[in-house]
Amino acid sequence: MDEQPENVVERELASPTFGDRLAEAVEQKRSQLVVGLDPRLELLPLELRGEAQHSPEGVAEAFSRFCRGIIDAVAPYAVCVKPQLAFFELYGSAGLRALEEICDHAREAGLLVLADAKRGDIGATARAYAGAYLEPRGARPPLADALTVNPYLGRDALEPFLLACQRHGGGIFVLLKTSNPGSADLQDLTLSDGRPLWHQLALLLQEPAETLVGASGLSSLGVVVGATYPRAIGEARKLLPRSIILLPGVGAQGASPADVARAFTSGPASALVNASRSVIFAYRAGEDLDWREAAGAEAARLRDEIWRVSGW
Amino acid sequence: MDEQPENVVERELASPTFGDRLAEAVEQKRSQLVVGLDPRLELLPLELRGEAQHSPEGVAEAFSRFCRGIIDAVAPYAVCVKPQLAFFELYGSAGLRALEEICDHAREAGLLVLADAKRGDIGATARAYAGAYLEPRGARPPLADALTVNPYLGRDALEPFLLACQRHGGGIFVLLKTSNPGSADLQDLTLSDGRPLWHQLALLLQEPAETLVGASGLSSLGVVVGATYPRAIGEARKLLPRSIILLPGVGAQGASPADVARAFTSGPASALVNASRSVIFAYRAGEDLDWREAAGAEAARLRDEIWRVSGW
Repeated sequence: MDEQPENVVERELASPTFGDRLAEAVEQKRSQLVVGLDPRLELLPLELRGEAQHSPEGVAEAFSRFCRGIIDAVAPYAVCVKPQLAFFELYGSAGLRALEEICDHAREAGLLVLADAKRGDIGATARAYAGAYLEPRGARPPLADALTVNPYLGRDALEPFLLACQRHGGGIFVLLKTSNPGSADLQDLTLSDGRPLWHQLALLLQEPAETLVGASGLSSLGVVVGATYPRAIGEARKLLPRSIILLPGVGAQGASPADVARAFTSGPASALVNASRSVIFAYRAGEDLDWREAAGAEAARLRDEIWRVSGW
Repeated sequence: MDEQPENVVERELASPTFGDRLAEAVEQKRSQLVVGLDPRLELLPLELRGEAQHSPEGVAEAFSRFCRGIIDAVAPYAVCVKPQLAFFELYGSAGLRALEEICDHAREAGLLVLADAKRGDIGATARAYAGAYLEPRGARPPLADALTVNPYLGRDALEPFLLACQRHGGGIFVLLKTSNPGSADLQDLTLSDGRPLWHQLALLLQEPAETLVGASGLSSLGVVVGATYPRAIGEARKLLPRSIILLPGVGAQGASPADVARAFTSGPASALVNASRSVIFAYRAGEDLDWREAAGAEAARLRDEIWRVSGW
């Protein structure tokens, strides 16, 4: 055969995949910890809050300094940082510039970047979102290594993100069963065959997840399951055996590392535990704590605890 | 009584509401047209494309010039512009700066601004998104008058947006039944009682919609229903009689103004028809067309056609 049909070439998977890169990082650092970067002006250390209040630019500069400090502190213990885009968008274009600085800094510190944007749209719009977060920007690398995605619009809305992952080695985490009480409103609705809605979504994700399985055996199509629902974690693990499960809700939202143990049965990198406020604002737990040292110490503690409950 | 309980004060509705402001604009302009601002580099007029290709800043400047030109051209015929955030986010902080300029310009031109961001998240994160788009930014007005919102995370995730609307006179449009074929994947799933999922969502929205009804009789909690599903439009109208229905999908996606007639039975401002590419890139339909004039002419034509089918 001289030529392959174009769609076969199209479906070739960039290597290493996001799943492969994550698996390597997990093994090297013996960590499945994701640190959520949720900067909030009123919770910043006083030394950063001072000048920040006068303008969006001032706040953005403080966010950039804070998050870069946190990144340096947690880099030995976390595999990934997860900037929450809402907190940057709150300060408009200045906030976005800070986000760009932070993502660059995280990459230089050897961390993967998961942009927590929960985007979802159709056609050309979804392609633009995929381009914004998962594709090279001219000569520069993609802003993020992975992106959270909202599935309400259906499979055709996921397609542009899957294609970007295939071509450029990124990943997505699709919201499956979220950590908040209101997740019951739609996600838990009982379908005519007796299953909850989110189970049906998991079934719809099985085929695309298989197309993104790399050398590590893990798919770059992951899912989000709230650590606050331990039973759902086990069910999701069975429905999507090769997907990386991102588990928010540990710490401030009330779940403990022990709640998430069953997510890890597909391998040490088959789940990630996110902690945000409990790490980045750890300095607020006591007097005279240095904010960087407190964040590093809490990340180290969580890393060890999660690794232990993961059973690897 | 000397004091009111705090939660009563909290629930007082800012006046005029988004629904009231929209109703006034619809009456004045005899228009229910929303023009979607979906700028794409490869579709821009050559005079703007030239210098733009070399940097995100160049593209952002071209987007700003293009969208401001479109705004001036369509302002007499449209009530609202709907910038699609993905196309701006594609160019990072430079793109967001252009978006800010465009939103300011639209306001000065007497247009309402609907930020098509399809955001959705929980707790403090949702509050930050509400702040980013629907609340005053220091001394400056909110970036937008209304925001599209994704409901997959449930009612508690909508609450911060509702509160921002109450306090600051903004609006939200919740994705109900979207215009793409994949909307069937989750939105049309049959529940155990035989109804489709999106009907259940409409029922969940009834109570919050009532809390946002202003003097015009319209709620500032609207919904998005694809013009590509005419039967769903009639059903949504019955389920949410006071909600403004935003109807995308006319033009490039194949629906015609006649398909949307039944959305308007709750009043002339009870539905909005969005057209994006068919208006802003109208100049591409012929040779030697001025891009501003072509957009204005197409907006005028659509305005008249929609007003006629609306029956008002």
